[in-house]
Amino acid sequence: MNESLEEPDARPTTGRVGVIGLGLIGGSVGLCLRGLGWTVVGADRDPRRCSDALEVGAVDEIVDIASMGSTDLVVVATPVGIIAEVVAAALDAGAPVVTDVGSVKGAVAAAITDPRFVPGHPMAGSEHEGVRGARPDLFHGAVWVLSPSATTADEAFAAVRAMVASMGADVATLDADAHDRLVAVVSHVPHLAAVTLMSVAEGRSVEHRALQRLAAGGFRDMTRIAAGHPGIWPDICAANAEAICEALDEVIARLSAIRIQVADGRRDELLVTLQRARAARIALPTGVPRDVDLAEVRIPVTDRPGELADITRLATDIDVNIYDLEIAHSAERAGGVLIVIVAAAIGERLVGALMANGYRPSIRPLTEAEDVA
Amino acid sequence: MNESLEEPDARPTTGRVGVIGLGLIGGSVGLCLRGLGWTVVGADRDPRRCSDALEVGAVDEIVDIASMGSTDLVVVATPVGIIAEVVAAALDAGAPVVTDVGSVKGAVAAAITDPRFVPGHPMAGSEHEGVRGARPDLFHGAVWVLSPSATTADEAFAAVRAMVASMGADVATLDADAHDRLVAVVSHVPHLAAVTLMSVAEGRSVEHRALQRLAAGGFRDMTRIAAGHPGIWPDICAANAEAICEALDEVIARLSAIRIQVADGRRDELLVTLQRARAARIALPTGVPRDVDLAEVRIPVTDRPGELADITRLATDIDVNIYDLEIAHSAERAGGVLIVIVAAAIGERLVGALMANGYRPSIRPLTEAEDVA
Repeated sequence: MNESLEEPDARPTTGRVGVIGLGLIGGSVGLCLRGLGWTVVGADRDPRRCSDALEVGAVDEIVDIASMGSTDLVVVATPVGIIAEVVAAALDAGAPVVTDVGSVKGAVAAAITDPRFVPGHPMAGSEHEGVRGARPDLFHGAVWVLSPSATTADEAFAAVRAMVASMGADVATLDADAHDRLVAVVSHVPHLAAVTLMSVAEGRSVEHRALQRLAAGGFRDMTRIAAGHPGIWPDICAANAEAICEALDEVIARLSAIRIQVADGRRDELLVTLQRARAARIALPTGVPRDVDLAEVRIPVTDRPGELADITRLATDIDVNIYDLEIAHSAERAGGVLIVIVAAAIGERLVGALMANGYRPSIRPLTEAEDVA
Repeated sequence: MNESLEEPDARPTTGRVGVIGLGLIGGSVGLCLRGLGWTVVGADRDPRRCSDALEVGAVDEIVDIASMGSTDLVVVATPVGIIAEVVAAALDAGAPVVTDVGSVKGAVAAAITDPRFVPGHPMAGSEHEGVRGARPDLFHGAVWVLSPSATTADEAFAAVRAMVASMGADVATLDADAHDRLVAVVSHVPHLAAVTLMSVAEGRSVEHRALQRLAAGGFRDMTRIAAGHPGIWPDICAANAEAICEALDEVIARLSAIRIQVADGRRDELLVTLQRARAARIALPTGVPRDVDLAEVRIPVTDRPGELADITRLATDIDVNIYDLEIAHSAERAGGVLIVIVAAAIGERLVGALMANGYRPSIRPLTEAEDVA
């Protein structure tokens, strides 16, 4: 460690966390954080969910939202439609840091400009619903998007990031609008497509019961998510209507083009379409490798608000996964050094992008003893 | 056994089988049947596939199609586009029974009216391709459709049925046209939908690399089959163009309706759509249970051509799975008794349908010692 720098910020790795909304995601956050040593206080407007959450061990106690000011961090895991008002209530109660887990980020990021708020979205779920489907390992290996806005404080972002990473999730930092457009393509519209395939099959199975027996692995894979809890989707569709309609239009246009290729026997065009899709599917990453050589990239920063979010967003943009991150403040001057840990093989990619954006980073390989846990 | 009846037809449970077309399906048929004691002779126009098939043990030897007359049964596992000509060649060579494994049945069933031909289609596959992806258990628990036509001989149908059942597959008997309409819905159009979702995502990932990291389990499930071998699809789409276009039209119409529901915020309509699809997905059977109480249904038959196919098609129509089937010929008169083994719980359903179609069946529970293996 450079002697002109203090020790990295002491981030409480555990503490007191509030979870508002005790469903599948809120319950899984509670189970996981309790397992990591946090004290978890929960709130839900439904007394039944509160008692269920206590019973499955997802929370230590049930409290009022008004008392969330005594926590270190609040996770809002309510349905999308009421997230903004619940986040505002938690902030009003004095919570030092608040994040949410909603599937749509643009509206809430625009509505809440408090620096203590960090919009978030774990890309994890289950066909089980409710706190009784909660699992402490639900987020392990899952991508968890954080969408800090221009008004989000670096300290709040760093605190949420550390908590999310401690649950085993891989953090991706994305603008709220970019997040919404991308999840429309990889989550919302695929869900609606699964529902549609199942609806068409259901219509046919009325006329022919054998259809269900013919539904083999591929069909089962493609419609599995249609078995998920339907109640959350009207909210999601309302909040992300624009991006969903845009992606649906593209799906419909491409299906219509394929229909013409099939009807007209355009074999070569069809083959090219299939070959491109196949190559893209094979190239889809299968998860972040855990046994890679790591490098440390040190980036002098000025403590400009939003600087931390800018740098991590840049890393996500160029597909560099950040394994760990800390800020070492200078004892002598404003600012300090942001230290990020990335895979050694692509560390130079981050260095290049940072230099292109006016930063002056340095990089060194980490020896095994120094590796982050 | 009723003394007025002879022993059931001696069906060769093993013998000499020919497999023409040594890819994933043909290779898996060969591996499986060799494991069951059959001698497997293979043919393929590609010498490389022939040597690969020998190397992985899918065939005992390579022969010419012209010598397929010395087999007990031939399985044609070539690409869909050339099945009819290969089946005709095998029949010309003198093969006593020929079946195929093509994904589309209408055209080949109409083209080949030889009583020795039994159109078939195993609903099994793999993202692996070629004989090196072959597995002896590929068909275990899979549905294998047989589509005997009006000209198919009962003896040929029974021989193919016994071979397919011996591989652990569940036989469903369906008219060729019904098969084609149903697989358009549960296989062909879902494949094209997976390709489309992957294509849309690929387009977006060019503008934003983070998309790939956001592609979580649901998206991966929905696009998995898009990684399959593209080469077979132009043939399938050409052979089943009408049914595929009809199902595509329905998918496009339903997606367009959902788009309007999303754009106009019609939450209640959207919820109903999602709820219906969810109920249908949950109701999808998870495979045929193996540890059920069985019943024996005895059906006097007259040896009218196609009678066996009619009865098994009726069973598939009313969703009664036939575990085993044999014909006991009468020593005293024409005809005999068809004995089918079904789950005891739904045996009466088959009895009712048979009576409604002019048959005079009887039913009795099977004790454990009598259960088929």
